Amino acid sequence: MSSAVKPAVVLLSGGLDSATVLAMARSQGYRCHALSVDYGQRSQAELQAARRVAAALGAAEHRVVRIDLGGFGGSALTDAAIDVPTAGVQAGVIPVTYVPARNTVLLSLALGWAEVLEAQHIFFGANAVDYSGYPDCRPAFIRAFESLANVATKMSIEGRRISVLAPLIDLSKADIIRAGAALGVDYALTVTCYQADDEGLACGVCDACRLRKAGFSAAGMADVTRYR
Amino acid sequence: MSSAVKPAVVLLSGGLDSATVLAMARSQGYRCHALSVDYGQRSQAELQAARRVAAALGAAEHRVVRIDLGGFGGSALTDAAIDVPTAGVQAGVIPVTYVPARNTVLLSLALGWAEVLEAQHIFFGANAVDYSGYPDCRPAFIRAFESLANVATKMSIEGRRISVLAPLIDLSKADIIRAGAALGVDYALTVTCYQADDEGLACGVCDACRLRKAGFSAAGMADVTRYR
Repeated sequence: MSSAVKPAVVLLSGGLDSATVLAMARSQGYRCHALSVDYGQRSQAELQAARRVAAALGAAEHRVVRIDLGGFGGSALTDAAIDVPTAGVQAGVIPVTYVPARNTVLLSLALGWAEVLEAQHIFFGANAVDYSGYPDCRPAFIRAFESLANVATKMSIEGRRISVLAPLIDLSKADIIRAGAALGVDYALTVTCYQADDEGLACGVCDACRLRKAGFSAAGMADVTRYR
Repeated sequence: MSSAVKPAVVLLSGGLDSATVLAMARSQGYRCHALSVDYGQRSQAELQAARRVAAALGAAEHRVVRIDLGGFGGSALTDAAIDVPTAGVQAGVIPVTYVPARNTVLLSLALGWAEVLEAQHIFFGANAVDYSGYPDCRPAFIRAFESLANVATKMSIEGRRISVLAPLIDLSKADIIRAGAALGVDYALTVTCYQADDEGLACGVCDACRLRKAGFSAAGMADVTRYR
């Protein structure tokens, strides 16, 4: 099989990071199967953004899996009773926007689809900025999931190794934006805000908006985000 | 906190194995939060059985999370286009009833709920008989998931260790049935068949029915399964 047709599953949230990862995977010649997960997050505009991004960046297909993590509660992103914070991130504190075991669930679903597709590569947009607060954005987490994937699956028993690639893990938000822009990502299509409205317009004050805004500024680029 | 009120998440399919695990966890004094996952499996009767078993065995609560693994295909249990085999298991061959990454997804969901509940124990009914064919029923898989859980979560960062307990892992089906019967499990409430009908009546010929039937026989007990 030539590298030009290697299949990969790419987790695609509709945000800035995963759009960049999809562009990177495409530029490396992967046939990209984009996967979005509707886990009851506050912002449905994110999933619509994911559809636009998948089409714009040439994903071979795009699927949305629905799952009701909101039933467990415990996060401002899935529980309407918890407010999204707007006062900025604090060092050493895990924000209430953390969704319990979210990235473990997302990668598990990606692994299931990878098995069906016989894809040995899973791309995931975890990065160093998120890592400041969320346990499941750390390099140690990515390595542990990769170890799991390599005992959990039929492919691994058959000797085909599965790789979990997190190309943004050590990049700053500015580096990510520069890399994506160089690959032609139109960030106006993406939605990062934790509480975007139905049209995908951003609040400008939640942690996700703050990190994104600072990223454009540090990259010396115009912020193309559509604010309300 | 006394051991009598320690919370645990117990994965409950409605089958014989997980019913036994719930009885074991209860007998050890855990407050049991039973979790069933509707992953598009052929047999909806299994989920109804899970509800009956959770009530009969004193679970503190029972939740069903819906997720559409059927959208990925690749298994006789989620894809109506693939027949459930009835000719018996073959050594060294992974059956088409294997659902890609299923147990990884189930444990990920259990982990998410455990975080919300601050439960440090997850009970899971993987066992040695299933292990003959499925990669994600092996002891190495359980250990790898436990390692992942202990880097993936807010609890683990805070120094509270998470244990994934698979008390059936080394037991034969006959041992499981004997242990459950001694704890008062009414196996007539459980549904094991891969293609049970809407009333939960079993086919008697699929691999799951064969293993269950042989288990009652080897335990020297009457088979209480309701066949059609």
